[in-house]
Amino acid sequence: MGSSFKERASKNLLSCDNTGGDAHFRRTENDFSNMYARDLLPAKNGEEPTMQFLLEVVEILTTYVRKTFDRSTKVLDFHHPHQLLEGMEGFNLELSDQPESLEQILVDCRDTLKYGVRTGHPRFFNQLSTGLDIVGLAGEWLTSTANTNMFTYEIAPVFVLMEQLTLKKMREMVGWPNGEGDGIFSPGGAISNMYSVMIARYKYFPDVKTKGMSAAPRLVLFTSEHSHYSIKKACAALGFGTENLILLSTDERGRVIPADLEAKVIEAKQKGYVPMFVNATAGTTVYGAFDPINEIADICEKYNMWLHVDGAWGGGLLMSRKHRHKLNGVERANSVTWNPHKMMGVPLQCSAVLVKERGLLQGCNSMCAGYLFQPDKQYDTSYDTGDKAIQCGRHVDIFKFWLMWKAKGTVGFEQHIDKCLDLSGYLYDKIKNREGYELVSEGEPQHTNVCFWYIPPGLRGLPDGQERQERLHKVAPKIKAMMMESGTTMVGYQPQGDKVNFFRMVISNHAATRSDIDFLIEEIERLGLDL
Amino acid sequence: MGSSFKERASKNLLSCDNTGGDAHFRRTENDFSNMYARDLLPAKNGEEPTMQFLLEVVEILTTYVRKTFDRSTKVLDFHHPHQLLEGMEGFNLELSDQPESLEQILVDCRDTLKYGVRTGHPRFFNQLSTGLDIVGLAGEWLTSTANTNMFTYEIAPVFVLMEQLTLKKMREMVGWPNGEGDGIFSPGGAISNMYSVMIARYKYFPDVKTKGMSAAPRLVLFTSEHSHYSIKKACAALGFGTENLILLSTDERGRVIPADLEAKVIEAKQKGYVPMFVNATAGTTVYGAFDPINEIADICEKYNMWLHVDGAWGGGLLMSRKHRHKLNGVERANSVTWNPHKMMGVPLQCSAVLVKERGLLQGCNSMCAGYLFQPDKQYDTSYDTGDKAIQCGRHVDIFKFWLMWKAKGTVGFEQHIDKCLDLSGYLYDKIKNREGYELVSEGEPQHTNVCFWYIPPGLRGLPDGQERQERLHKVAPKIKAMMMESGTTMVGYQPQGDKVNFFRMVISNHAATRSDIDFLIEEIERLGLDL
Repeated sequence: MGSSFKERASKNLLSCDNTGGDAHFRRTENDFSNMYARDLLPAKNGEEPTMQFLLEVVEILTTYVRKTFDRSTKVLDFHHPHQLLEGMEGFNLELSDQPESLEQILVDCRDTLKYGVRTGHPRFFNQLSTGLDIVGLAGEWLTSTANTNMFTYEIAPVFVLMEQLTLKKMREMVGWPNGEGDGIFSPGGAISNMYSVMIARYKYFPDVKTKGMSAAPRLVLFTSEHSHYSIKKACAALGFGTENLILLSTDERGRVIPADLEAKVIEAKQKGYVPMFVNATAGTTVYGAFDPINEIADICEKYNMWLHVDGAWGGGLLMSRKHRHKLNGVERANSVTWNPHKMMGVPLQCSAVLVKERGLLQGCNSMCAGYLFQPDKQYDTSYDTGDKAIQCGRHVDIFKFWLMWKAKGTVGFEQHIDKCLDLSGYLYDKIKNREGYELVSEGEPQHTNVCFWYIPPGLRGLPDGQERQERLHKVAPKIKAMMMESGTTMVGYQPQGDKVNFFRMVISNHAATRSDIDFLIEEIERLGLDL
Repeated sequence: MGSSFKERASKNLLSCDNTGGDAHFRRTENDFSNMYARDLLPAKNGEEPTMQFLLEVVEILTTYVRKTFDRSTKVLDFHHPHQLLEGMEGFNLELSDQPESLEQILVDCRDTLKYGVRTGHPRFFNQLSTGLDIVGLAGEWLTSTANTNMFTYEIAPVFVLMEQLTLKKMREMVGWPNGEGDGIFSPGGAISNMYSVMIARYKYFPDVKTKGMSAAPRLVLFTSEHSHYSIKKACAALGFGTENLILLSTDERGRVIPADLEAKVIEAKQKGYVPMFVNATAGTTVYGAFDPINEIADICEKYNMWLHVDGAWGGGLLMSRKHRHKLNGVERANSVTWNPHKMMGVPLQCSAVLVKERGLLQGCNSMCAGYLFQPDKQYDTSYDTGDKAIQCGRHVDIFKFWLMWKAKGTVGFEQHIDKCLDLSGYLYDKIKNREGYELVSEGEPQHTNVCFWYIPPGLRGLPDGQERQERLHKVAPKIKAMMMESGTTMVGYQPQGDKVNFFRMVISNHAATRSDIDFLIEEIERLGLDL
């Protein structure tokens, strides 16, 4: 009871084989130079080397974690592919026939982190998934250690139940009565969206499963011109054809115009197509726009179309009493994609597709493989989830999310989301009247996305026209390249439609503060001054 | 230099903030009861609690690792779903609005492992993926800590290059000149097989991508009646229809009969179908059979069909000079699935699809999303892999594999595979003439699969006939159920075709020894004695 934490920790961690006395532990780092993977468990006497090796790895990782949150550390140490391929000092990516020592393996671990990108750094704003949640990280470490597979209750009893309970909770937040319905965690939002298209097709044309697309009429699907490209990928993969995905026009804020949907539905019907599926986006990738779900749902009901809500990015707002109104109508959807690995800060990968009608996932995907899903097991095999999936083996993506939810509570996610949206409001207020900035669209941010052009002093006097546009188009890539070279921060940019390259700032990192927003703006101005 | 490892480890791990003296570290476990997730980084003064919490998690995990390799530990502590759902003492799966203390989170971590299944235990034989490789585990821990995404070089420079080099090495082992070609790591063998079907379709009928399946003639695909169900799932998902997947007959060892393929190709053509794709399995799920690739390749060439080799399970044998002949002809394949997470003991998930012709993956899947794959980046964007994938975000599955390859060398994988196949030979020799055993097929095992019936004494005198078959059908499930209840070992069973339930023993665990095989047989006989 009175022993120090240090003593206790090391005693427990290294108590594996202390029968030989402390001599066993008198090792310096150099000792790993004579140790190889074959000396680790299950090798005879492998317990002690195993513990020492893992502890050394943990030291590398915890050092990395500490530095990740340290603003004096760079976000990245950029090198071009050819530089890394040629080999940095002591870091050779080539694989060889003979084993390397564990010392070299530890060096490789350090170098892998050194030349990587700190996605948890408070100034990493480059993607929708940022941040390093400590409880989530612990959850991932445990998941790796358990090293099992979601397909049967038999080998993942706890994880299968956690998935079931968590999916139910998510469906409750969507607003489906008693959280009824179905769902599955998939390897990312693109696959979740693909599921939604597959399930919709199965609902309306179940014979496609056995007979192929010739069993269905000529089908068309609808999605916003601003939606994620995964809907298009799904149309290509599943045999619909990308030309049969009809893009919907949006308003100046990037939201689908419902009247445009209805007009295009009518037009398609007149041409002999059968409108089957509409994707409404809750939080578009670039603008963070929320399509008007209720109006879209009205049209879906009227024309008997499947309504999917892609809330990969915006789904997290359902956890916030302040912001969930942006998804009003989501309870009318037939299916919903929601990626906790984006706005909710769960480590990658963690994406769910939720389905209102029970049985469709199973019906759509089941192949009843007798060697995996034996009906004569001693437990209730309805808990075996494998036959619902398009995958066979399925990674355990649930545990980290479940553990974070336990640790933060629903209120913790709500605070996180409200804070990130507050920060984007701060950025918006900061730049909306600031010299040298132009917002891509007017009005308060809908999500944490703030899209803007930075106009370097040298361009400010130019009249609007082709020359200015061409020069402005090059500004964001140049600033971004300098940012990466200096390693100070990272933010994304892209063109959109007829708009030249602009910055897309997004905030999902729980470590970011107003000072980091200030830093970003200072950095853009510092680097862009002479462009 | 002279300090003990214990001291050094704890000093380094906890050196984060020792300015306040040792008082900071005088904590007992109970202290976590007043700590919450909000006290961890990025919280102010969060560094020390973070390190303490992570170290405590590591202690739980390393204890689990040690016990996993300890044969006096059970493989599992079985509970029915309703038991776990009702809540075990102190372990409540339900999620709540308010946060739990970190103490509870640590208890949850312990309980999650306690009620799970030790897939790394030397006596866990239940799946094709078993074992807990320590270097692979370290690799997963690092991957979780890096928490990034494979879609662009920009945010995963090192991992993207590792993937590229490793895929090239795998293609070399397949036998493609200079390792040329393409490939990608995907979330499991089912998705890798799905890729192969998509790419084949794109190669022959590229218009399907834009126009849908109506742009192709009536297509048929071929695979063994013993092949993995993922080929069928792909046919359902991609719009071919499962009825257009033609199952090929096999010989008594479970290998495709080439003449049957040719006959069915001719028959399909006569009916007006276009034969497009043949899947040859290298290591079937149940029998471990290797289809004769060369003879199948001859037919594919003759009729201009895509040849895919599903080596999810058997691909690992390419690493063994002794056993790789079983895949002779694999170099003639157009695509190959190979799951290092199966026979090579890499932690889940790690699956690759390799493609002989460069450009097809990109052509098939690219949608050129400007917001992710900006052409005006400062580096060579051909390293951005995202547009090759059907996913958008993609988990980093490469690092653990790369690190294991470094640590073991190619020779280390070879030794692992040779050892597992030796063990299956040992099992085969042990039971082939043993009283109470019948092998499902004659002859030395092709892979590590050994399929057999155990005939309890009470059934041995029965004449072959319906009664004996019906009773024998119930033997394996009963023994398996008792095994799980007692937690001593786990092995799979299933029926196949007209064969009643039999055990399928597979060995991929590097911790398994002959004594574990002996134990399994003793256990089957002990539990099955009175059936």
